[in-house]
Amino acid sequence: MPPPTNAPNTPKAIEFYFDFSSPYGYLASERIDAIAAKHGRSVNWRPILLGPAFKASGNAPLVGQPMKGEYSIRDFLRTAKFLGVPFQLPAPFPIGTQNAARAFYWLQDRDAGLARQLAQALYRTYFAEGRDITAAATVVEVAARLGVDSAELTAALADHAIKDRLKHEVEASLALGVFGSPYIVVDGEPFWGHDRLEQVDAWLKTGGW
Amino acid sequence: MPPPTNAPNTPKAIEFYFDFSSPYGYLASERIDAIAAKHGRSVNWRPILLGPAFKASGNAPLVGQPMKGEYSIRDFLRTAKFLGVPFQLPAPFPIGTQNAARAFYWLQDRDAGLARQLAQALYRTYFAEGRDITAAATVVEVAARLGVDSAELTAALADHAIKDRLKHEVEASLALGVFGSPYIVVDGEPFWGHDRLEQVDAWLKTGGW
Repeated sequence: MPPPTNAPNTPKAIEFYFDFSSPYGYLASERIDAIAAKHGRSVNWRPILLGPAFKASGNAPLVGQPMKGEYSIRDFLRTAKFLGVPFQLPAPFPIGTQNAARAFYWLQDRDAGLARQLAQALYRTYFAEGRDITAAATVVEVAARLGVDSAELTAALADHAIKDRLKHEVEASLALGVFGSPYIVVDGEPFWGHDRLEQVDAWLKTGGW
Repeated sequence: MPPPTNAPNTPKAIEFYFDFSSPYGYLASERIDAIAAKHGRSVNWRPILLGPAFKASGNAPLVGQPMKGEYSIRDFLRTAKFLGVPFQLPAPFPIGTQNAARAFYWLQDRDAGLARQLAQALYRTYFAEGRDITAAATVVEVAARLGVDSAELTAALADHAIKDRLKHEVEASLALGVFGSPYIVVDGEPFWGHDRLEQVDAWLKTGGW
């Protein structure tokens, strides 16, 4: 019999919140699993929508902001190169990522490992290939490459059940205080930004300071 | 005869913009000189006022923001501890830092090395001791410990000349695109945030990528 998932000796998974339209979320997505694995931990990938988070916290997409916007684009490109992660600024940017996030949760309920692969494939399609992933048809096509049935996923994306599911996930993240992307929670401790991964690594090693 | 400051073989100083009320500016201030020195570089400390920068870029102080504010305080404390830098959240926070910045520029025209020491002393008074440095009298007292004449500095802080000087410095920083603190420029390349010091270090080493 497998141990119950909340057994005392089972280390808790890291919670990884991100929006598929977030460049820093993408950069974190390329590193988070390896960092967790070093410490025998797994990662719960949790796509959210930054729109409601920005509304709740009074923020706005970086690139539309005077001064900061121009700097941010420079920083995305420079930081990706610094980390050795393939990156290009896609157009359009930013985009609505409802279809990408809904596809992820639908697949997660069927095959969590495959959903993780889909998330990475969607992120890479948008930020490494620079291809718009807004449309349901694009999301379905990316999923099909991983063996996901296109007719089934197309139907699911149009269904109210998955819309409600994503709405619930976003509301739950807001209730936990998730206001940006990436937002990583390790044993209750929140870390915002891919530039906190060094602290995430240290926190996993030491249990905090 | 000393070489002219813009001789081709003289490596350019790093520009370090900060507000004395910025926790991340303080964290950077404790590390920037050592990073520059590793690469044979010096640092131009340039106190600015975030108020005009926030107005120009549409930003606001972190701690007043819903969700992000609460997280930020946690992150100040955790990051300072992670870096081994003494830190406490002062009250009041944030503060107006006109007097601190004016004292710095007044002293810089007389003794640049001493001005650098004053900047560090002011930052530590505010963030390590948690003592309010808004008032001219407090700034004068901190400067007096470094041997700065109190009567002279008190008179200077009330003078229009130094008010104009700071105004000019702030306007010049805005014209260069400085929208936050710390904001570091290495050979024309801008880096925003103490969490870009790793990239600053690498940029100084390699000349860019």
